[in-house]
Amino acid sequence: MIYADNAATTKMSSAAIAAMMPYITEYYGNPSSLYLAGQKAKEAIERARESVARCIGAQPREILFTSGGSESDNQAILSAAMIGKKQGKRHIVSDPIEHHAVLHTLKKLEKEGFEITFLPVYGEGVVRAEDLKNAVRDDTCLVTVMYANNEIGTIQPIGEIGRFCRERGILFHTDAVQAVGHIPVDVVKDGVDLLSASAHKFHGPKGVGFLYAKRGIPLSNLIEGGAQERGKRAGTENVPGIVAAAAALEESAAKMEENARKLSALRDRLICGLSEISHSALNGDAHKRLPSNVNFCFEGIEGESLLLLLDDKGICASSGSACTSGSLDPSHVLLAIGRVHDVAHGSLRLTLGEDADTEDVDYIIRSVKEVVERLRGFSPVWRDLTSGKKPFIL
Amino acid sequence: MIYADNAATTKMSSAAIAAMMPYITEYYGNPSSLYLAGQKAKEAIERARESVARCIGAQPREILFTSGGSESDNQAILSAAMIGKKQGKRHIVSDPIEHHAVLHTLKKLEKEGFEITFLPVYGEGVVRAEDLKNAVRDDTCLVTVMYANNEIGTIQPIGEIGRFCRERGILFHTDAVQAVGHIPVDVVKDGVDLLSASAHKFHGPKGVGFLYAKRGIPLSNLIEGGAQERGKRAGTENVPGIVAAAAALEESAAKMEENARKLSALRDRLICGLSEISHSALNGDAHKRLPSNVNFCFEGIEGESLLLLLDDKGICASSGSACTSGSLDPSHVLLAIGRVHDVAHGSLRLTLGEDADTEDVDYIIRSVKEVVERLRGFSPVWRDLTSGKKPFIL
Repeated sequence: MIYADNAATTKMSSAAIAAMMPYITEYYGNPSSLYLAGQKAKEAIERARESVARCIGAQPREILFTSGGSESDNQAILSAAMIGKKQGKRHIVSDPIEHHAVLHTLKKLEKEGFEITFLPVYGEGVVRAEDLKNAVRDDTCLVTVMYANNEIGTIQPIGEIGRFCRERGILFHTDAVQAVGHIPVDVVKDGVDLLSASAHKFHGPKGVGFLYAKRGIPLSNLIEGGAQERGKRAGTENVPGIVAAAAALEESAAKMEENARKLSALRDRLICGLSEISHSALNGDAHKRLPSNVNFCFEGIEGESLLLLLDDKGICASSGSACTSGSLDPSHVLLAIGRVHDVAHGSLRLTLGEDADTEDVDYIIRSVKEVVERLRGFSPVWRDLTSGKKPFIL
Repeated sequence: MIYADNAATTKMSSAAIAAMMPYITEYYGNPSSLYLAGQKAKEAIERARESVARCIGAQPREILFTSGGSESDNQAILSAAMIGKKQGKRHIVSDPIEHHAVLHTLKKLEKEGFEITFLPVYGEGVVRAEDLKNAVRDDTCLVTVMYANNEIGTIQPIGEIGRFCRERGILFHTDAVQAVGHIPVDVVKDGVDLLSASAHKFHGPKGVGFLYAKRGIPLSNLIEGGAQERGKRAGTENVPGIVAAAAALEESAAKMEENARKLSALRDRLICGLSEISHSALNGDAHKRLPSNVNFCFEGIEGESLLLLLDDKGICASSGSACTSGSLDPSHVLLAIGRVHDVAHGSLRLTLGEDADTEDVDYIIRSVKEVVERLRGFSPVWRDLTSGKKPFIL
């Protein structure tokens, strides 16, 4: 099996599992307890917090552990909106290719009287800092732009955005779920105020994430209750999960440069191979792109059938975001970069893992070519296209 | 080591760990994915949902997996409040010994214009149905009373409350975090509309819980984003955690009767032994009580010192809720049942696990006697009490 859906979720690393197990079998005490077994758990959380902070250039007290990226996104954006509201500022700038955890939270705020400006992302799926400069207003309380896109892998000009926001005194949140552990993220250099991350995207466990909030930014609680996480996130801490998340991130950070180099080469080989398929197109900028991400549209086919046939060949891939699968709507990201409905339906996302090699990539290329050809063979749309009844788009 | 803090958290059962591991090492796919590895994960979640539903007499579609009891409490109460608000009903009935996840959510609602009536719990720490009947009004949208208390273990008359609420058409939520897996809970028999539970309280993993919502009750989202959990709880599902939670609950349910019988006997032996300590008192009703819970006040001592000295003797215990430890305020539960500040400070909660035996209990009794005596030996308060300078309360 070739697992090429690492943007959806990753396999937990052996280091993360090894780090986690003692906190399941031995130091299982509640970290709020006074006795040694609880204190050991408490210490482990604080070590994890230091480790996570170090990996993104933050201070330990700026890290809040959550149940995942979606919770972090919700809390970050609602907190910034609450701060804005108190200052009479109800304008937010974002972009249309954000994750739904961001977009749906913004929609909720729109109903509460906030106004949202969405920056264009153009054909390459990247926002431009000059558009942001034109979009901000005196009542802008938040800019929220993701670090890297989960579907097409494009990397946004976070440093530029961050520096501009800092100059203007506007809070800046970035959903860095796809970036942390994969490309260098430094909240100080990048000028980030709020950052969301998810452990299962960097070989940590599912159900754990974190929120970075620059010191001094008052967070609103999403979950009220006990005084855990400095009173900002109630609920018994998921000690084994938190410890495993930190171990996974440490390892990902250590291997980042090597993996990025290796994966970029494999990615480019894969892009090159798939480009040979007629009437296909890469989605998203070819260079400002995560090392592991390849996303293509193939004209005249259905993405779902493509995935099922690839599964038969032992290739795990997706059509876009796992979080919206089951939906018949085409990807909002592909529509935003200008793909029409028909074309957006024939998309394929391949996100390579660090264990991938050229053999895997070549097998994927051969398999996709074969499957696309087969599907086009009985596609009425493809017949219309090739017979000239309908014009090709790609 | 004798772990007697099972109300704070429990050790994960071997069955739960065994059920979890394949979803970490093998079927780690995102359950929203089309390929087999993702579909296996999806199926596992649905099997877990059926299993959890069966254990509390619910239908699978009525179970929503969350990150824990606090999240479930928040979502349940905010959802009921939202329903009430739409009907112009802004009155909620609860009681003062609820968990902070409930109390703080109610406080948030109070700020938004809701009115909360707190039922008395009397000296025994149990609400009375007749008080509820007097408290409800035409604009009551929710009654929220916990199934069993986390500090003093008292079991509330849930069936009676549920039947009354059903008759009156008022939504009824119960925080059953301490009850599920320990005493019989049946949402249909009990007339419960919304119920919160947490896996790590019944030998499942930390960071997983569930919310039961009777079919037809529209839930509000706490976490917005992807369409997971029928669109009511965004974020990649914590598959290993969910599977482990279900396995733990199945096992707890199977052993419930046997454990309850055994633990009640040990509990009563422990209560009997500790009662021999002069100027001590059991907190909470002796009979309407969780099988594993013992909670005492000892006059003239500090709970914290008691815990540290017991830790030295290898006994893990707590003074009350783990979620509020670190706070210098005495327990809100003990104050609510009428303990004065000084006495409430000298509290000890012992919550036995299923592996406890009479030898453990006798060792605990001996140890507590010894430690209380030692602490009283150098307590100025105790000196004042024994010299008649201050009157005894207990």
